[in-house]
Amino acid sequence: MRLISCLAALSLAVPALAQPSVSPSDIIAAAPASDWRDIPVGELIVMRLGDDREIVIQLAPAMAPGHVANILRLAEAGWFAAHAQIVRVQENYVVQWGDPSEKAALPTGMVAPADGYDRPGPPPAFQALPFPDAYGATVGFSNGWPVATHGRAHWLPHCPAMVGVGRNMPPDTGTGAELYAVIGHGPRHLDRNIAVVGRVLEGIEHLSALPRGGGALGFYENPDQRVTITAFQPASTETPRYAVLQGPSLTRWANARANRGDAFFIRPAGGADICNLMPPVRRADQKKK
Amino acid sequence: MRLISCLAALSLAVPALAQPSVSPSDIIAAAPASDWRDIPVGELIVMRLGDDREIVIQLAPAMAPGHVANILRLAEAGWFAAHAQIVRVQENYVVQWGDPSEKAALPTGMVAPADGYDRPGPPPAFQALPFPDAYGATVGFSNGWPVATHGRAHWLPHCPAMVGVGRNMPPDTGTGAELYAVIGHGPRHLDRNIAVVGRVLEGIEHLSALPRGGGALGFYENPDQRVTITAFQPASTETPRYAVLQGPSLTRWANARANRGDAFFIRPAGGADICNLMPPVRRADQKKK
Repeated sequence: MRLISCLAALSLAVPALAQPSVSPSDIIAAAPASDWRDIPVGELIVMRLGDDREIVIQLAPAMAPGHVANILRLAEAGWFAAHAQIVRVQENYVVQWGDPSEKAALPTGMVAPADGYDRPGPPPAFQALPFPDAYGATVGFSNGWPVATHGRAHWLPHCPAMVGVGRNMPPDTGTGAELYAVIGHGPRHLDRNIAVVGRVLEGIEHLSALPRGGGALGFYENPDQRVTITAFQPASTETPRYAVLQGPSLTRWANARANRGDAFFIRPAGGADICNLMPPVRRADQKKK
Repeated sequence: MRLISCLAALSLAVPALAQPSVSPSDIIAAAPASDWRDIPVGELIVMRLGDDREIVIQLAPAMAPGHVANILRLAEAGWFAAHAQIVRVQENYVVQWGDPSEKAALPTGMVAPADGYDRPGPPPAFQALPFPDAYGATVGFSNGWPVATHGRAHWLPHCPAMVGVGRNMPPDTGTGAELYAVIGHGPRHLDRNIAVVGRVLEGIEHLSALPRGGGALGFYENPDQRVTITAFQPASTETPRYAVLQGPSLTRWANARANRGDAFFIRPAGGADICNLMPPVRRADQKKK
């Protein structure tokens, strides 16, 4: 009864599911070019650990403009590679990197911006999903990002692979020189309490599989355990280009994820958590396939 | 406005928050002995990787009696240590262990049980939480376990550190000889599609920080990458004893988690996901503190 009524509700919200048993991957494969949004190269950061562990981050300038401007400035100056290390890996929570000495000078005039926790009004080009949210928000997508809103403001939720800005006690908002990526179940209680500035597009496994720190909050107790950051810089001509699913294909994909019709499933869930609906990303060179 | 109304709703559901700013850890520290439930030693499994990476699992015989009986029988026979390895580590999903040859004989007469996906009726001793669930269930606690229900049945949700039984296509339900632990954001779409049989109490970081597999679904492509299981056995007299928070302290803790009053937080969430509310566990020898 519950599943049938949920499916009925979804069919009102999403009129276009031609075949109820189309799989999420089928929807991605069949998405027209107009449902892939090119990610601007100016939003990409390449982070490297050691010689070859590469992590690509997309920044979200529309969501946290002041923090993103700071992070781009630090990246252009080579600040992270010069001063930052991975200092904290807390199980089922975050991987954090920054200057362990807390003494390296920031570029002249760089301060913690006032903005960054949310943006006014509903999300632009909002694709709302019909699923409840444990945190009382309305959730969905905006320009290829997962978003949460209560109408008067919208924000990026703390889902796995999202990147945020470490800060001290309020009213500090953090400069952007201390960053973290979420690993584990999304700590959504941090939403609107910390600036979320982006998302790891590739290489999150180089962060999430790092040894956990033995100190309080997962800080490494021994400086030798810290992981060296060999690069944290804006994308170059060598960097892959990416596109993210958007538009009707993204909504169809989300609803197919919530109502799996493939042979493995006995009972489709009839719902899905926004953190299990991170918009699919592909390398732009996969377009031609 | 939204937070105030959420707090008002909670104050109806949970009348006893003496100090609204009491922290979750304060509540744990102040919990009376009657709010700690001893975990029966017969529910504990000790798993070991290599020489010293120890993982303690609590089985849930009330939730999946047939599967748990099989797993205990396999553990008593030393079957996992003799035949199983960690064969799959999929980013933000699961770590899975079983017999990579799929040829090791099971104990005589062992078959995949029919039960295990859910249990009839509402959860026993159910402590419902007032937070919405993206999957349309009512969520809360039952005897120290996180649970989800729609009234006619209840089940263990796929949250981080929960342990489930790998299976083939339905109607197979799996014997229990292939197990997985959840790492990453809880894949709740698996709820009631696979038997959840327990929870990792200690040592989940020995699983979640393993190198990810490079093959499809995170399977290790090279047999050398598989991780040897040196023990998977019932608890011995050497094994620590554990207790889990229950009763009024558990409800208060959950509501404090949803409404952080400490100085770091600007905006309490007013809600929380059941997978961010895994009932706190302590070693029994911490009782005397």
